[in-house]
Amino acid sequence: MSWYLTKDDLIPIALGAAVLGTGGGGDPYIGRLLAEEAIAEKDLLVMDVDEVADSEWVIPIAAMGAPTVLLEKIPAGPEPIIAFQALEKELGIRAQAVCAMEAGGVNSMVPLATAAHLNLPVVDADGMGRAFPEVYMETFHIYGLSGTPACVVNEWGDVVTFRAHTNQTLEHYARAVTIRMGGHAFLSHFAMQGTDLKRTAVRGTLGFAKRLGEAVLRVEKTHRDPIAALLKAARTPPYGGADIIFVGKIVDVQRRTSGGFARGRVLIDGTDDYFTRRMRIEFQNENLVAVMDERPVVTVPDLITVLDRENGTPITTEYLHYGQRVTVLAIAAPPIMKSPEALLVWGPEAFGYSYPYLEPHFIRANNPEIEGR
Amino acid sequence: MSWYLTKDDLIPIALGAAVLGTGGGGDPYIGRLLAEEAIAEKDLLVMDVDEVADSEWVIPIAAMGAPTVLLEKIPAGPEPIIAFQALEKELGIRAQAVCAMEAGGVNSMVPLATAAHLNLPVVDADGMGRAFPEVYMETFHIYGLSGTPACVVNEWGDVVTFRAHTNQTLEHYARAVTIRMGGHAFLSHFAMQGTDLKRTAVRGTLGFAKRLGEAVLRVEKTHRDPIAALLKAARTPPYGGADIIFVGKIVDVQRRTSGGFARGRVLIDGTDDYFTRRMRIEFQNENLVAVMDERPVVTVPDLITVLDRENGTPITTEYLHYGQRVTVLAIAAPPIMKSPEALLVWGPEAFGYSYPYLEPHFIRANNPEIEGR
Repeated sequence: MSWYLTKDDLIPIALGAAVLGTGGGGDPYIGRLLAEEAIAEKDLLVMDVDEVADSEWVIPIAAMGAPTVLLEKIPAGPEPIIAFQALEKELGIRAQAVCAMEAGGVNSMVPLATAAHLNLPVVDADGMGRAFPEVYMETFHIYGLSGTPACVVNEWGDVVTFRAHTNQTLEHYARAVTIRMGGHAFLSHFAMQGTDLKRTAVRGTLGFAKRLGEAVLRVEKTHRDPIAALLKAARTPPYGGADIIFVGKIVDVQRRTSGGFARGRVLIDGTDDYFTRRMRIEFQNENLVAVMDERPVVTVPDLITVLDRENGTPITTEYLHYGQRVTVLAIAAPPIMKSPEALLVWGPEAFGYSYPYLEPHFIRANNPEIEGR
Repeated sequence: MSWYLTKDDLIPIALGAAVLGTGGGGDPYIGRLLAEEAIAEKDLLVMDVDEVADSEWVIPIAAMGAPTVLLEKIPAGPEPIIAFQALEKELGIRAQAVCAMEAGGVNSMVPLATAAHLNLPVVDADGMGRAFPEVYMETFHIYGLSGTPACVVNEWGDVVTFRAHTNQTLEHYARAVTIRMGGHAFLSHFAMQGTDLKRTAVRGTLGFAKRLGEAVLRVEKTHRDPIAALLKAARTPPYGGADIIFVGKIVDVQRRTSGGFARGRVLIDGTDDYFTRRMRIEFQNENLVAVMDERPVVTVPDLITVLDRENGTPITTEYLHYGQRVTVLAIAAPPIMKSPEALLVWGPEAFGYSYPYLEPHFIRANNPEIEGR
């Protein structure tokens, strides 16, 4: 069912999107500034996937680049609109709605600002259900759509349009251009009609982000435990369950930027009676795997988010530092993200790990909606 | 005056283009294979710049990338045609002729093959008058034209279209994509009408290459000195004079590929009675400066070409090796390449050298046509 997104929804959505960002995806608070300005005067229509007509065109919009660069290079504004319109022109179409590429991080906000500026609705869906480091890591790719033509736009209004023979090739070329644009740019790609959107999108991810954020913010006013409230909200569909997988203190962080990605790992020593060992979380822009005693506990595509232990605020990888007291939340990804073809693209082996995806213990226990899958 | 280029002209043009390649620009013998196949059935109309109507569109076509990569990755064929047509489509125009970006090296041949396949004439002109390492190093850029939109195409038929706010930005982005395409691709850019072509092009460079090659080949049959014949032909307009600046033996070569360029230097010890000292030639894809006793003798944009001493064959930088006996030919570039605005783009200071362009001694003495300039 469609709903109207108001300026007041942006704070909870940004918070929820930071949880879905799983440590990456850029800081949604920066994107929120853009969206607030765009939505200030008029509420934004949010459509369910099923409300998009089969023949209507939808264009997913996103920021591209290393989040560590984004911190120092706040986008100017019109780039995503230029990217949207350049792709319309390239295809000779008019799109009826904006969609997210990535529900996590700053990319939760980019489509909202774009849709508001264009006076178009936004679809409650995305292609990642979280944040991922590469642009072909999308259900749109996994379920057979072409990511090209695609347009990359920077703050100078430079437009680079790609037609590539594979979506991985698009990533390869567009990443190179993004790096030369200073590490950050805006991308329009996977223009699709309603019939393909219904088949391929991760549904309801914007509404889910909003509910996560609202749960935390509601609790803040009542002085109850924000992490418990977040966990409860995270256990609702369309996601597949959630749990706290570690509580501890950060004892070491390593990170570097290479090839346009922020790569590294964080070590957390248990401080809770229940969590006495050490957890290692490895990331490439986003948290990829949580490991204990050299055995994976949770892996991509399931979501791993490091939270500030006191207030439940998600901590992106660039803000991790020694001594932080943290709680690690894991959320099971929706089933559409865990088909065999999806795991080929974003399971642990796709990121170079030697082990396959394993369903975490909480995937069934905590979510009655997905019992019996 | 227009003339018809036949298959038999390709061997002398390739030889002359290798001289204009000044050590870079790729091996024209590879490009010749493409052109021979294309021209086999029908001669190619070559138009003078003045024969292009003011309103007619011309598109310069070129290969882009490090010549050392080209040696191992021979182009398949249709890429420059795809690049030409993609740029026509992007601009909504039909072009009436093909032009060269670069008269030196393989890029002498690329427009010939493209024009033959498209059944269009080729213009006897280019934007460099030789070979240069970067795509904004063109008179088209120097005299105010925009290099974008531009299209880069690879052997997969991937098309990347650039609209950039400066021509240097186009170089920056297109180079990154070319590197990710495997180090070699085809480029269409600087689409222009006749009125701009007449104002900006280096004229007569295809005909000049043909005359250089013919001079050497004619002498081969008569067993006279090929280098003397080449020197005589090189002293004709539109170029500004020529001379042999060194004769010796290569005693050291250093080269590396970095950032998509082949960079390095060669040391030559004099072996002739007249040339007793040591010459150092520094190159970035192309030979940039010839230095003796730490003083520049000839610099960009004038042409420096290392020839095999026995047969006058130009030696590209990737084929330079210890022990080769060589003659160094220098040719003064045409006046349009040496205006103050041109020297800003491709004088020695543009390549990081501390000294300005100095006219070599032979520029007036050897060419009566340019006396009194």
